[in-house]
Amino acid sequence: MADRLNLLLAVHNHQPVGNFPQVFERAFRECYLPFFRILERHPRIRMTVHFSGPLLESMDGREPECAELVSVLAGRGQIELLGGGFYEPILTIIPEADRQGQLRLMNDFLEEHFGARPRGIWLTERVWEPNLPKTLAAAGIEYTLLDEEHFRGAGAEDIHRIYITEDEGRPLRLFPIDKKLRYLIPFRPLEEISRWFEVIRARGGLAILGDDGEKFGMWPGTKEWVYDRGWLEEFLAFLEADERIETRTFSEALDAFPPEARIYLPPASYEEMMEWVLEPAEARILAGLKATLPENARRFLRGGFFRDFFLKYPEINHLHKRMLGVSRRVLARGDDDARRELYRGQCNDPYWHGVFGGLYLPHLRESAYYHLLQAEKMIPAEAGWQAADEDADGHAEIFRRDDLFGLQVKPVSGGAITEIDYFPQTRNLCDVLSRRPESYHAAPDPAAAPGEGGSIHEMRKELPPGAERLFRYDRYPRFCAVDHFLHPETRPDDFRDSAHGEQGDFVGQPYAWSIVQDRLYLSRKGSVLTGGIRTPVSIQKEIRPEGRDIHVVCTISNLGDRDLALWYAGEWNFYQIPEEFAADDSGASLAGGGLRFSFEPARGFWNFPLQTLSQSEKGFDVIHQGVCLLPHWQVRLPAQGSFTVRFHLGEDRRT
Amino acid sequence: MADRLNLLLAVHNHQPVGNFPQVFERAFRECYLPFFRILERHPRIRMTVHFSGPLLESMDGREPECAELVSVLAGRGQIELLGGGFYEPILTIIPEADRQGQLRLMNDFLEEHFGARPRGIWLTERVWEPNLPKTLAAAGIEYTLLDEEHFRGAGAEDIHRIYITEDEGRPLRLFPIDKKLRYLIPFRPLEEISRWFEVIRARGGLAILGDDGEKFGMWPGTKEWVYDRGWLEEFLAFLEADERIETRTFSEALDAFPPEARIYLPPASYEEMMEWVLEPAEARILAGLKATLPENARRFLRGGFFRDFFLKYPEINHLHKRMLGVSRRVLARGDDDARRELYRGQCNDPYWHGVFGGLYLPHLRESAYYHLLQAEKMIPAEAGWQAADEDADGHAEIFRRDDLFGLQVKPVSGGAITEIDYFPQTRNLCDVLSRRPESYHAAPDPAAAPGEGGSIHEMRKELPPGAERLFRYDRYPRFCAVDHFLHPETRPDDFRDSAHGEQGDFVGQPYAWSIVQDRLYLSRKGSVLTGGIRTPVSIQKEIRPEGRDIHVVCTISNLGDRDLALWYAGEWNFYQIPEEFAADDSGASLAGGGLRFSFEPARGFWNFPLQTLSQSEKGFDVIHQGVCLLPHWQVRLPAQGSFTVRFHLGEDRRT
Repeated sequence: MADRLNLLLAVHNHQPVGNFPQVFERAFRECYLPFFRILERHPRIRMTVHFSGPLLESMDGREPECAELVSVLAGRGQIELLGGGFYEPILTIIPEADRQGQLRLMNDFLEEHFGARPRGIWLTERVWEPNLPKTLAAAGIEYTLLDEEHFRGAGAEDIHRIYITEDEGRPLRLFPIDKKLRYLIPFRPLEEISRWFEVIRARGGLAILGDDGEKFGMWPGTKEWVYDRGWLEEFLAFLEADERIETRTFSEALDAFPPEARIYLPPASYEEMMEWVLEPAEARILAGLKATLPENARRFLRGGFFRDFFLKYPEINHLHKRMLGVSRRVLARGDDDARRELYRGQCNDPYWHGVFGGLYLPHLRESAYYHLLQAEKMIPAEAGWQAADEDADGHAEIFRRDDLFGLQVKPVSGGAITEIDYFPQTRNLCDVLSRRPESYHAAPDPAAAPGEGGSIHEMRKELPPGAERLFRYDRYPRFCAVDHFLHPETRPDDFRDSAHGEQGDFVGQPYAWSIVQDRLYLSRKGSVLTGGIRTPVSIQKEIRPEGRDIHVVCTISNLGDRDLALWYAGEWNFYQIPEEFAADDSGASLAGGGLRFSFEPARGFWNFPLQTLSQSEKGFDVIHQGVCLLPHWQVRLPAQGSFTVRFHLGEDRRT
Repeated sequence: MADRLNLLLAVHNHQPVGNFPQVFERAFRECYLPFFRILERHPRIRMTVHFSGPLLESMDGREPECAELVSVLAGRGQIELLGGGFYEPILTIIPEADRQGQLRLMNDFLEEHFGARPRGIWLTERVWEPNLPKTLAAAGIEYTLLDEEHFRGAGAEDIHRIYITEDEGRPLRLFPIDKKLRYLIPFRPLEEISRWFEVIRARGGLAILGDDGEKFGMWPGTKEWVYDRGWLEEFLAFLEADERIETRTFSEALDAFPPEARIYLPPASYEEMMEWVLEPAEARILAGLKATLPENARRFLRGGFFRDFFLKYPEINHLHKRMLGVSRRVLARGDDDARRELYRGQCNDPYWHGVFGGLYLPHLRESAYYHLLQAEKMIPAEAGWQAADEDADGHAEIFRRDDLFGLQVKPVSGGAITEIDYFPQTRNLCDVLSRRPESYHAAPDPAAAPGEGGSIHEMRKELPPGAERLFRYDRYPRFCAVDHFLHPETRPDDFRDSAHGEQGDFVGQPYAWSIVQDRLYLSRKGSVLTGGIRTPVSIQKEIRPEGRDIHVVCTISNLGDRDLALWYAGEWNFYQIPEEFAADDSGASLAGGGLRFSFEPARGFWNFPLQTLSQSEKGFDVIHQGVCLLPHWQVRLPAQGSFTVRFHLGEDRRT
């Protein structure tokens, strides 16, 4: 038996909270069901399987056939089920109490539905930090799978064996995922896979694979390759026939093989993730180093840190810190229902972006905010404006919540309104993604050609026609009540393309603030450049919720001693799909007609859609992220003179 | 005022728990006292100061003059006192409950003695992990100082400003320590320092230094330079005279300057530490990369991870895991006294090794075990042998504790006795450090010449004569009851130099174990090579505590079908200074005559001292780490025959 190759396979199946029902339906029909039907016909093959909570809930109600099949396979010991955070959160970026809650939810669910508590977990996106062993031990978890890259970064040379690590003396067994197997299965012919098995066998190692189940039917081209052309059937038949291969569940391997070495892993994820988190210029430097440095330098080469997504994308940071705030309130005052909504709002997908859309997909962000706001609605609000540094940037944000609206204002960021929650629709109207450079906006590598069953990592993607029109990048986040002074020659397209000349110094700059009764006052003394001269100018903004409306009154004052020709524009960005938005001369209908944005006095009004270009597993997506509304006023102010404009957002009572 | 340079100075004063009283005394006399006496004469200079708990306790009792001086300076706001873990533990490697306890102890002490709770901490050895903000926020801490290297590793380019980070939304302000200032102060002339101040001022930055206070008088050569030749007096006079320099405490800077940028730091410490933790071969590779890669590659270059000290030095791992075990028991059943002893046992110095002796200093390891065992003595022991995987390596250790002895046996590591605590002296007799290669055993860099006031980092150290004799490295940890089969030509020196031929396969290999009443049985079927042939041989060891003695009975059996000439040796290593140890033909007196190690039947007996060569801030130290005792027997065993030897350790009743 010594020359037997022990093969440990784990498939991880996941669909995000908030993904379209038809995607769930297709995933079961074209991927999960056919996979397990074929597995059922090969009873000698044992493997380990993970379904994230959204899939388990879906199976439980709408996919009885798959639920039954999984139950049968688990019952006869052919598959072992993995745990994890129930709604598939990145464990390292949620509070410890929520880690425990999410893990417990999954443990309980698996015990109730499939008769066994899990011994291992699928670690979401394999995002590792060194204190996870303590977290997992507290939830009764004995092992997880991590990537080759994690181990390389710790100087490990042999990734075909089981490691053990600890935190505070709480042990955790670690299975390194063989990256080469990730690229071979299911994309390559059996002979090639078999050759790599021989190499591992010769080394006396374990062959360990853990990867997305969607590679078996959901990823582009895989349905034909894996099922229609018979790859999976052939692969399992080959494994079953080869006496020298023994498939085991991970728990069986755990019991059969003691851990061979101790290890301490710095934070890491799979190699690609640690590139995606970098800014494009940094990613290029890292790619250059990887291409040129010798193999023995590898352990000293570090990609990005997952938490850097909070720096790369302010929108991820905003969502993350809002989630933490809701979590604190739920922990203090929430019930089980609020807790479950919070957990749904922690589902990982909109908290990062790589080869999958993630953050760029508005419906996933919308879903995250929906669930967080649902949780928040279950907790009584404090009356009036509140100030607190909820996003831990060292500066207070100002909040206010009533039954209709939730508001967040950041004085330090241009005195802008950074969140407007509209509770009748349970959504964050300010959830607008900025346009920014991405590594893949550069020309793709023509050397990488797609092949038969080509790995997704090797697929060439075609930029859509007119894509270069989308390579215009925002200079600041797309908030509401952003104060601009435009250059006299600014055309609408300039502003849309972020190519306008900003004459003021108000955007993104700190505002003083004060709360008087139910009014929030924001003010800044800045300056405006006209005819080559900077003149002191102040802005005072009053934000005043009143009944079912929000009024923003903005007074611009010429503090200088000469006349001033100013072109002031107030920018408001809303997350709206085209169907629920309509603009006219005096404002815009939002939220499918439920809300009205207006301004006075009447003057110019530009508005345009905001679109991004992002990559996904299928190719490139042009995505409508929202609308930008820009009422603007050209006025001549005498020395010490001022003028006032008013913005209004409220329920549409015109009809 | 805009062109003023804000200079933030922090000095960190520390002496290890268990360091010699005369070192404490000298540190106050030659370093801390003169430093603060000079500072007192420059009332315009403000700075931030850290004393670790061992120094505070010492001041409180034996150094009233320094205590009074610090009190006066703190009272008039000239110095701000920093908190930290009271007994200066590496926070990331102790349990969260102990982190809070140690921080609270310091907060309370400073409030009681100096009237203010600290707002910032000195982070021991600046060992950072990403969950520290949560830990520190829970203890009411707002800021800490970290090294330039931490920030470089996160891609930061500007280290002359204040950053903010968070964990679970709990913020922590971070001050980057300018590495160049660390090398300039106090080693270089004022003009050179002033030039660097000018560069920082021109950039509009803050000049931030935090460094060891022992650089001002304790480090070699610094007493003359800093005091006798007047460097400190001149430096402070220069600062006080220059209108364009404003010294501030860190808290004052915190209040004056809002954090300018958010950051997320992966685990790190100062640059040198991340090199020291590497194995010599790895350290060479990293040094090569640093020397050759361009500046923009720096953020992608990662040194070692502090927790890797647990892999590099098994003795650190043993101490660390013992500490965690004691911590668990103290948390469950300990009182305040036990907790304080535990905290003393967590003092960082013996948990690492770099330019300071640390681990290599037996009196510091002895002190750590002393305090851990003191804590343990305060908690009732369970009766008889216990099995548990306390060191989280995936394999059970076997424990037993009574009033006289504490025993730990590791079946997986050659069935060796890995700890013998002797409670009447409250010490771990097995605390013997192995000899292993260190980077500095290679020839030192002749380019680095010592200069006037030369930085310790640049000092050339001379290897002592005969040093090469010490470059013999152990192949396994120096445990007790290690089972050897020697090659017939082995001479005593071969064994001492780890140059002997090991003929058996028992050292470090797994033994089966069972507990029957109060006896622990260990057994292994292995083999011995004689005349080019491997013959199956078994060893059974019985460990039997009896009254005030420990008996180890070892039976060696020839499982083969031919006669076998064997040379069996049982190796026992004890931490003993020469004065408390004496060997004779039949055994050895240990513990200053309190204990007796003996064996029977009488036969050969080698014994020799164990010495290491390590570096310290002064140069190279040859350190006596203990003694190796090797009774040995040459026997001829018939097929299926066996013979038995007995070892005995107990109180010496011969006199």
